[in-house]
Amino acid sequence: MKLSKRLKRQLDFLCEIDKVKSVRRRTLLMDGSRRENDAEHAWHLGVMALIFSEQSPASRRLNLLKVIKMLLIHDLVEIDSGDTFLYDDKKRAAGALKEAKAARLIFGLLPKDQAKEYLRLWQEFESRKTPEAAFAAAIDRFQPVLHNYKTRGRVWRRAVVSPGQVLTKNKHIADGAPALWGCVQKFVKDGIKRGYFAKR
Amino acid sequence: MKLSKRLKRQLDFLCEIDKVKSVRRRTLLMDGSRRENDAEHAWHLGVMALIFSEQSPASRRLNLLKVIKMLLIHDLVEIDSGDTFLYDDKKRAAGALKEAKAARLIFGLLPKDQAKEYLRLWQEFESRKTPEAAFAAAIDRFQPVLHNYKTRGRVWRRAVVSPGQVLTKNKHIADGAPALWGCVQKFVKDGIKRGYFAKR
Repeated sequence: MKLSKRLKRQLDFLCEIDKVKSVRRRTLLMDGSRRENDAEHAWHLGVMALIFSEQSPASRRLNLLKVIKMLLIHDLVEIDSGDTFLYDDKKRAAGALKEAKAARLIFGLLPKDQAKEYLRLWQEFESRKTPEAAFAAAIDRFQPVLHNYKTRGRVWRRAVVSPGQVLTKNKHIADGAPALWGCVQKFVKDGIKRGYFAKR
Repeated sequence: MKLSKRLKRQLDFLCEIDKVKSVRRRTLLMDGSRRENDAEHAWHLGVMALIFSEQSPASRRLNLLKVIKMLLIHDLVEIDSGDTFLYDDKKRAAGALKEAKAARLIFGLLPKDQAKEYLRLWQEFESRKTPEAAFAAAIDRFQPVLHNYKTRGRVWRRAVVSPGQVLTKNKHIADGAPALWGCVQKFVKDGIKRGYFAKR
Protein backbone atom coordinates (compact mmCIF):
# COMPACT_ATOMS: atom_id res chain seq x y z
CA MET A 1 0.00 0.00 0.00
CA LYS A 2 1.33 3.42 -0.95
CA LEU A 3 0.39 6.51 1.05
CA SER A 4 -1.12 9.35 -0.95
CA LYS A 5 0.91 12.53 -1.40
CA ARG A 6 -1.67 14.43 0.63
CA LEU A 7 -1.46 12.02 3.56
CA LYS A 8 2.33 12.13 3.43
CA ARG A 9 2.36 15.93 3.67
CA GLN A 10 -0.08 15.81 6.58
CA LEU A 11 2.12 13.26 8.37
CA ASP A 12 5.25 15.35 7.75
CA PHE A 13 3.54 18.35 9.34
CA LEU A 14 2.26 16.33 12.30
CA CYS A 15 5.74 14.93 12.94
CA GLU A 16 7.48 18.30 12.57
CA ILE A 17 5.21 19.96 15.13
CA ASP A 18 6.20 17.36 17.73
CA LYS A 19 9.17 19.69 18.33
CA VAL A 20 6.90 22.25 19.99
CA LYS A 21 6.87 19.91 23.01
CA SER A 22 10.49 20.95 23.53
CA VAL A 23 9.99 24.74 23.27
CA ARG A 24 10.17 25.92 26.86
CA ARG A 25 8.26 28.94 28.12
CA ARG A 26 9.03 31.16 31.09
CA THR A 27 5.84 30.11 32.88
CA LEU A 28 6.11 27.44 35.58
CA LEU A 29 3.70 24.55 36.04
CA MET A 30 1.27 25.40 38.84
CA ASP A 31 3.13 23.09 41.25
CA GLY A 32 6.31 25.08 40.46
CA SER A 33 8.22 21.91 39.53
CA ARG A 34 9.45 23.03 36.10
CA ARG A 35 8.84 25.39 33.18
CA GLU A 36 5.98 24.48 30.89
CA ASN A 37 6.38 23.96 27.15
CA ASP A 38 4.40 25.29 24.20
CA ALA A 39 2.42 22.08 23.63
CA GLU A 40 1.21 21.94 27.24
CA HIS A 41 0.39 25.64 27.10
CA ALA A 42 -1.63 25.23 23.89
CA TRP A 43 -3.54 22.29 25.36
CA HIS A 44 -4.39 24.29 28.48
CA LEU A 45 -5.57 27.21 26.36
CA GLY A 46 -7.80 24.89 24.36
CA VAL A 47 -9.59 23.59 27.44
CA MET A 48 -9.73 27.11 28.91
CA ALA A 49 -11.42 28.44 25.77
CA LEU A 50 -14.02 25.66 25.95
CA ILE A 51 -14.82 26.36 29.59
CA PHE A 52 -14.74 30.17 29.29
CA SER A 53 -16.43 30.56 25.88
CA GLU A 54 -19.41 32.23 27.61
CA GLN A 55 -17.02 35.04 28.64
CA SER A 56 -16.57 36.33 25.10
CA PRO A 57 -18.72 39.41 24.38
CA ALA A 58 -19.62 37.67 21.09
CA SER A 59 -20.66 34.62 23.18
CA ARG A 60 -23.27 32.61 21.26
CA ARG A 61 -22.21 33.94 17.87
CA LEU A 62 -18.60 32.95 18.57
CA ASN A 63 -17.16 30.30 16.24
CA LEU A 64 -15.60 28.22 19.00
CA LEU A 65 -14.03 25.67 16.66
CA LYS A 66 -12.13 28.52 14.97
CA VAL A 67 -10.95 29.76 18.39
CA ILE A 68 -9.66 26.30 19.29
CA LYS A 69 -7.94 25.92 15.93
CA MET A 70 -6.11 29.22 16.49
CA LEU A 71 -5.08 28.32 20.01
CA LEU A 72 -3.79 24.85 19.14
CA ILE A 73 -1.55 26.16 16.35
CA HIS A 74 -0.66 29.71 17.46
CA ASP A 75 2.75 28.84 18.90
CA LEU A 76 4.00 26.51 16.17
CA VAL A 77 6.07 29.38 14.77
CA GLU A 78 8.20 29.13 17.91
CA ILE A 79 9.67 25.83 16.71
CA ASP A 80 11.90 28.00 14.53
CA SER A 81 11.92 31.31 16.37
CA GLY A 82 11.77 30.20 20.05
CA ASP A 83 9.53 31.56 22.78
CA THR A 84 9.87 35.26 23.57
CA PHE A 85 9.10 36.43 27.09
CA LEU A 86 6.14 38.84 27.06
CA TYR A 87 8.02 41.45 29.06
CA ASP A 88 11.13 41.46 26.83
CA ASP A 89 10.25 44.36 24.48
CA LYS A 90 13.44 44.36 22.39
CA LYS A 91 13.26 40.70 21.51
CA ARG A 92 9.56 40.90 20.75
CA ALA A 93 9.96 43.63 18.13
CA ALA A 94 12.66 41.67 16.31
CA GLY A 95 10.64 38.48 16.66
CA ALA A 96 7.55 39.50 14.67
CA LEU A 97 9.21 39.27 11.24
CA LYS A 98 10.95 36.03 12.14
CA GLU A 99 7.62 34.56 13.22
CA ALA A 100 5.86 35.52 10.00
CA LYS A 101 8.60 33.71 8.08
CA ALA A 102 8.38 30.71 10.41
CA ALA A 103 4.60 30.56 9.89
CA ARG A 104 5.00 30.29 6.11
CA LEU A 105 7.55 27.52 6.59
CA ILE A 106 5.68 25.39 9.09
CA PHE A 107 2.20 25.65 7.56
CA GLY A 108 3.77 25.25 4.11
CA LEU A 109 4.42 21.62 4.97
CA LEU A 110 0.66 20.94 4.73
CA PRO A 111 -1.32 20.29 1.52
CA LYS A 112 -2.01 23.64 -0.17
CA ASP A 113 -5.62 24.13 0.97
CA GLN A 114 -4.76 23.39 4.59
CA ALA A 115 -1.55 25.45 4.45
CA LYS A 116 -3.63 28.43 3.34
CA GLU A 117 -6.30 27.87 6.00
CA TYR A 118 -3.86 27.59 8.90
CA LEU A 119 -1.61 30.44 7.78
CA ARG A 120 -4.71 32.65 7.64
CA LEU A 121 -5.86 31.48 11.06
CA TRP A 122 -2.45 32.30 12.49
CA GLN A 123 -2.54 35.77 10.89
CA GLU A 124 -6.06 36.34 12.18
CA PHE A 125 -4.96 35.35 15.68
CA GLU A 126 -2.03 37.76 15.54
CA SER A 127 -4.23 40.63 14.33
CA ARG A 128 -6.75 40.26 17.22
CA LYS A 129 -9.38 41.93 15.06
CA THR A 130 -12.21 39.38 14.88
CA PRO A 131 -14.25 38.28 17.94
CA GLU A 132 -12.61 34.83 17.69
CA ALA A 133 -9.08 36.28 17.59
CA ALA A 134 -9.81 38.73 20.42
CA PHE A 135 -11.15 35.95 22.62
CA ALA A 136 -8.29 33.56 21.74
CA ALA A 137 -5.73 36.29 22.48
CA ALA A 138 -7.40 37.01 25.83
CA ILE A 139 -7.17 33.33 26.80
CA ASP A 140 -3.52 33.20 25.64
CA ARG A 141 -2.69 36.08 28.00
CA PHE A 142 -4.89 35.02 30.90
CA GLN A 143 -3.32 31.58 31.31
CA PRO A 144 0.26 32.73 32.13
CA VAL A 145 -1.08 35.34 34.56
CA LEU A 146 -3.04 32.60 36.32
CA HIS A 147 0.10 30.43 36.43
CA ASN A 148 2.24 33.26 37.76
CA TYR A 149 -0.34 34.06 40.41
CA LYS A 150 -0.67 30.39 41.41
CA THR A 151 3.13 30.05 41.74
CA ARG A 152 3.16 33.08 44.04
CA GLY A 153 4.78 35.38 41.50
CA ARG A 154 8.07 33.49 41.28
CA VAL A 155 8.51 34.37 37.59
CA TRP A 156 7.37 37.99 38.13
CA ARG A 157 9.92 38.48 40.90
CA ARG A 158 12.74 36.69 39.10
CA ALA A 159 12.26 38.83 35.95
CA VAL A 160 11.46 41.98 37.99
CA VAL A 161 8.10 42.47 36.31
CA SER A 162 6.00 45.21 37.94
CA PRO A 163 2.22 45.13 38.60
CA GLY A 164 1.89 48.01 36.11
CA GLN A 165 3.62 45.97 33.40
CA VAL A 166 1.29 43.01 33.96
CA LEU A 167 -1.71 45.30 33.57
CA THR A 168 -0.36 47.21 30.54
CA LYS A 169 0.89 44.19 28.62
CA ASN A 170 -2.29 42.22 29.11
CA LYS A 171 -4.94 44.92 28.89
CA HIS A 172 -6.45 43.53 25.68
CA ILE A 173 -7.85 40.70 27.81
CA ALA A 174 -10.57 43.28 28.53
CA ASP A 175 -11.67 43.20 24.85
CA GLY A 176 -11.82 39.44 24.46
CA ALA A 177 -13.04 38.36 27.90
CA PRO A 178 -14.05 41.21 30.24
CA ALA A 179 -14.70 39.00 33.30
CA LEU A 180 -11.25 37.45 32.99
CA TRP A 181 -9.78 40.94 32.92
CA GLY A 182 -11.54 41.48 36.23
CA CYS A 183 -9.76 38.37 37.52
CA VAL A 184 -6.38 39.64 36.36
CA GLN A 185 -6.90 42.95 38.17
CA LYS A 186 -7.83 41.00 41.30
CA PHE A 187 -4.76 38.74 40.99
CA VAL A 188 -2.46 41.74 40.61
CA LYS A 189 -3.98 43.61 43.56
CA ASP A 190 -3.80 40.51 45.68
CA GLY A 191 -0.28 39.76 44.43
CA ILE A 192 0.95 43.18 45.57
CA LYS A 193 -0.46 42.55 49.04
CA ARG A 194 1.12 39.10 49.26
CA GLY A 195 4.57 40.15 48.00
CA TYR A 196 4.40 38.41 44.63
CA PHE A 197 6.22 41.33 42.96
CA ALA A 198 9.83 42.43 43.46
CA LYS A 199 10.50 45.69 45.28
CA ARG A 200 12.22 48.08 42.84
CA MET B 1 -14.37 42.88 43.06
CA LYS B 2 -15.65 39.43 44.03
CA LEU B 3 -15.46 36.51 41.60
CA SER B 4 -18.75 34.77 40.91
CA LYS B 5 -19.22 31.22 42.22
CA ARG B 6 -19.41 29.97 38.65
CA LEU B 7 -16.10 31.58 37.68
CA LYS B 8 -14.46 30.23 40.84
CA ARG B 9 -15.53 26.67 40.03
CA GLN B 10 -14.25 27.06 36.47
CA LEU B 11 -10.91 28.36 37.79
CA ASP B 12 -10.64 25.48 40.29
CA PHE B 13 -11.14 22.98 37.47
CA LEU B 14 -8.63 24.72 35.19
CA CYS B 15 -6.03 24.74 37.98
CA GLU B 16 -6.63 21.12 38.97
CA ILE B 17 -6.15 19.88 35.41
CA ASP B 18 -2.69 21.46 35.30
CA LYS B 19 -1.60 18.19 36.97
CA VAL B 20 -2.15 16.28 33.73
CA LYS B 21 1.10 17.90 32.52
CA SER B 22 2.85 15.63 35.00
CA VAL B 23 1.16 12.35 34.02
CA ARG B 24 3.79 10.52 32.01
CA ARG B 25 2.93 8.14 29.18
CA ARG B 26 4.99 5.27 27.80
CA THR B 27 5.32 6.96 24.41
CA LEU B 28 8.55 8.84 23.67
CA LEU B 29 8.76 12.23 21.98
CA MET B 30 9.64 11.73 18.32
CA ASP B 31 13.24 12.79 18.98
CA GLY B 32 13.42 10.04 21.62
CA SER B 33 14.61 12.51 24.29
CA ARG B 34 12.00 11.69 26.96
CA ARG B 35 8.52 10.27 27.59
CA GLU B 36 5.62 12.51 26.67
CA ASN B 37 2.92 13.54 29.10
CA ASP B 38 -0.86 13.52 28.83
CA ALA B 39 -1.18 17.26 28.12
CA GLU B 40 1.26 17.12 25.20
CA HIS B 41 -0.46 13.99 23.92
CA ALA B 42 -3.91 15.64 24.07
CA TRP B 43 -2.61 18.73 22.27
CA HIS B 44 -1.11 16.58 19.51
CA LEU B 45 -4.39 14.67 19.14
CA GLY B 46 -6.29 17.94 18.83
CA VAL B 47 -4.16 19.15 15.93
CA MET B 48 -4.19 15.69 14.37
CA ALA B 49 -8.00 15.60 14.44
CA LEU B 50 -8.14 19.00 12.73
CA ILE B 51 -5.76 17.94 9.97
CA PHE B 52 -7.23 14.45 9.48
CA SER B 53 -10.96 15.29 9.86
CA GLU B 54 -11.48 14.42 6.18
CA GLN B 55 -10.45 10.83 7.06
CA SER B 56 -13.58 10.15 9.11
CA PRO B 57 -16.20 8.14 7.18
CA ALA B 58 -18.74 10.67 8.54
CA SER B 59 -16.52 13.45 7.12
CA ARG B 60 -18.65 16.52 6.38
CA ARG B 61 -21.36 15.57 8.86
CA LEU B 62 -18.75 15.17 11.61
CA ASN B 63 -19.11 17.56 14.55
CA LEU B 64 -15.42 18.44 14.72
CA LEU B 65 -15.77 20.72 17.75
CA LYS B 66 -17.20 17.77 19.69
CA VAL B 67 -14.28 15.60 18.58
CA ILE B 68 -11.79 18.19 19.79
CA LYS B 69 -13.61 18.60 23.11
CA MET B 70 -13.40 14.83 23.67
CA LEU B 71 -9.73 14.67 22.77
CA LEU B 72 -8.69 17.61 24.94
CA ILE B 73 -10.36 16.16 28.04
CA HIS B 74 -10.22 12.38 27.51
CA ASP B 75 -7.15 11.78 29.69
CA LEU B 76 -8.05 14.01 32.64
CA VAL B 77 -9.19 10.93 34.56
CA GLU B 78 -5.53 9.87 34.64
CA ILE B 79 -4.74 12.65 37.12
CA ASP B 80 -6.21 10.30 39.72
CA SER B 81 -5.81 6.90 38.11
CA GLY B 82 -2.50 7.27 36.21
CA ASP B 83 -1.74 6.26 32.64
CA THR B 84 -2.15 2.56 31.83
CA PHE B 85 -0.02 1.08 29.08
CA LEU B 86 -2.23 -0.13 26.20
CA TYR B 87 -0.59 -3.55 26.17
CA ASP B 88 -0.97 -4.18 29.93
CA ASP B 89 -4.26 -6.15 29.94
CA LYS B 90 -4.50 -6.82 33.68
CA LYS B 91 -4.08 -3.21 34.69
CA ARG B 92 -6.51 -2.01 32.05
CA ALA B 93 -9.37 -4.19 33.27
CA ALA B 94 -8.97 -2.92 36.84
CA GLY B 95 -8.54 0.63 35.57
CA ALA B 96 -11.96 1.10 33.94
CA LEU B 97 -13.92 1.39 37.19
CA LYS B 98 -11.29 3.65 38.73
CA GLU B 99 -11.47 5.91 35.69
CA ALA B 100 -15.27 6.22 35.82
CA LYS B 101 -14.95 7.35 39.44
CA ALA B 102 -12.14 9.74 38.57
CA ALA B 103 -14.27 11.24 35.78
CA ARG B 104 -17.09 12.08 38.20
CA LEU B 105 -14.59 13.68 40.55
CA ILE B 106 -12.70 15.81 38.05
CA PHE B 107 -15.66 17.03 35.98
CA GLY B 108 -17.60 17.51 39.20
CA LEU B 109 -15.40 20.50 39.95
CA LEU B 110 -17.13 22.42 37.12
CA PRO B 111 -20.47 24.26 37.37
CA LYS B 112 -23.29 21.71 37.09
CA ASP B 113 -24.21 22.26 33.43
CA GLN B 114 -20.58 21.97 32.32
CA ALA B 115 -19.89 19.02 34.64
CA LYS B 116 -22.75 17.18 32.97
CA GLU B 117 -21.64 18.10 29.46
CA TYR B 118 -18.03 16.99 29.93
CA LEU B 119 -18.83 13.81 31.86
CA ARG B 120 -21.14 12.85 28.98
CA LEU B 121 -18.49 13.67 26.41
CA TRP B 122 -15.98 11.51 28.27
CA GLN B 123 -18.49 8.63 28.41
CA GLU B 124 -19.28 9.04 24.71
CA PHE B 125 -15.56 8.94 23.91
CA GLU B 126 -15.10 5.76 25.93
CA SER B 127 -18.09 4.07 24.25
CA ARG B 128 -16.76 4.73 20.69
CA LYS B 129 -20.32 4.45 19.40
CA THR B 130 -20.94 7.79 17.66
CA PRO B 131 -19.03 8.90 14.53
CA GLU B 132 -17.32 11.58 16.66
CA ALA B 133 -16.23 9.10 19.33
CA ALA B 134 -15.08 6.55 16.74
CA PHE B 135 -12.97 9.17 14.96
CA ALA B 136 -11.55 10.58 18.23
CA ALA B 137 -10.67 7.06 19.43
CA ALA B 138 -8.94 6.33 16.11
CA ILE B 139 -6.80 9.47 16.45
CA ASP B 140 -6.01 8.58 20.09
CA ARG B 141 -4.65 5.21 18.97
CA PHE B 142 -2.95 6.37 15.78
CA GLN B 143 -0.73 8.95 17.50
CA PRO B 144 1.22 6.55 19.76
CA VAL B 145 1.71 4.12 16.86
CA LEU B 146 3.16 6.98 14.82
CA HIS B 147 5.45 7.91 17.73
CA ASN B 148 6.59 4.34 18.23
CA TYR B 149 7.29 3.97 14.53
CA LYS B 150 9.18 7.27 14.40
CA THR B 151 11.33 6.28 17.39
CA ARG B 152 12.22 3.04 15.61
CA GLY B 153 10.14 0.83 17.89
CA ARG B 154 12.12 1.54 21.05
CA VAL B 155 9.00 1.25 23.25
CA TRP B 156 7.71 -1.81 21.36
CA ARG B 157 11.01 -3.62 21.84
CA ARG B 158 11.44 -2.58 25.46
CA ALA B 159 7.94 -3.80 26.38
CA VAL B 160 8.18 -6.83 24.04
CA VAL B 161 5.05 -5.85 22.09
CA SER B 162 4.50 -7.98 18.99
CA PRO B 163 3.31 -6.79 15.56
CA GLY B 164 0.15 -8.87 16.09
CA GLN B 165 -0.58 -7.06 19.36
CA VAL B 166 -0.23 -3.65 17.71
CA LEU B 167 -2.71 -4.69 15.03
CA THR B 168 -5.20 -6.33 17.42
CA LYS B 169 -5.19 -3.61 20.05
CA ASN B 170 -5.61 -0.82 17.54
CA LYS B 171 -7.91 -2.38 14.99
CA HIS B 172 -10.80 0.00 15.75
CA ILE B 173 -8.75 2.69 13.98
CA ALA B 174 -10.29 1.07 10.87
CA ASP B 175 -13.79 2.19 11.98
CA GLY B 176 -12.93 5.80 12.77
CA ALA B 177 -10.33 6.56 10.11
CA PRO B 178 -9.82 3.83 7.49
CA ALA B 179 -6.90 5.52 5.71
CA LEU B 180 -5.00 5.86 8.98
CA TRP B 181 -5.54 2.15 9.58
CA GLY B 182 -3.84 1.62 6.23
CA CYS B 183 -0.91 3.66 7.58
CA VAL B 184 -0.70 1.57 10.74
CA GLN B 185 -0.57 -1.65 8.73
CA LYS B 186 2.21 -0.14 6.62
CA PHE B 187 4.14 1.00 9.73
CA VAL B 188 3.91 -2.48 11.27
CA LYS B 189 4.99 -4.25 8.07
CA ASP B 190 7.85 -1.83 7.63
CA GLY B 191 8.71 -2.08 11.35
CA ILE B 192 9.09 -5.87 11.10
CA LYS B 193 11.48 -5.45 8.17
CA ARG B 194 13.55 -2.84 10.00
CA GLY B 195 13.77 -4.72 13.31
CA TYR B 196 11.50 -2.42 15.32
CA PHE B 197 10.01 -5.41 17.17
CA ALA B 198 11.74 -7.73 19.66
CA LYS B 199 12.47 -11.29 18.62
CA ARG B 200 10.47 -13.59 20.94
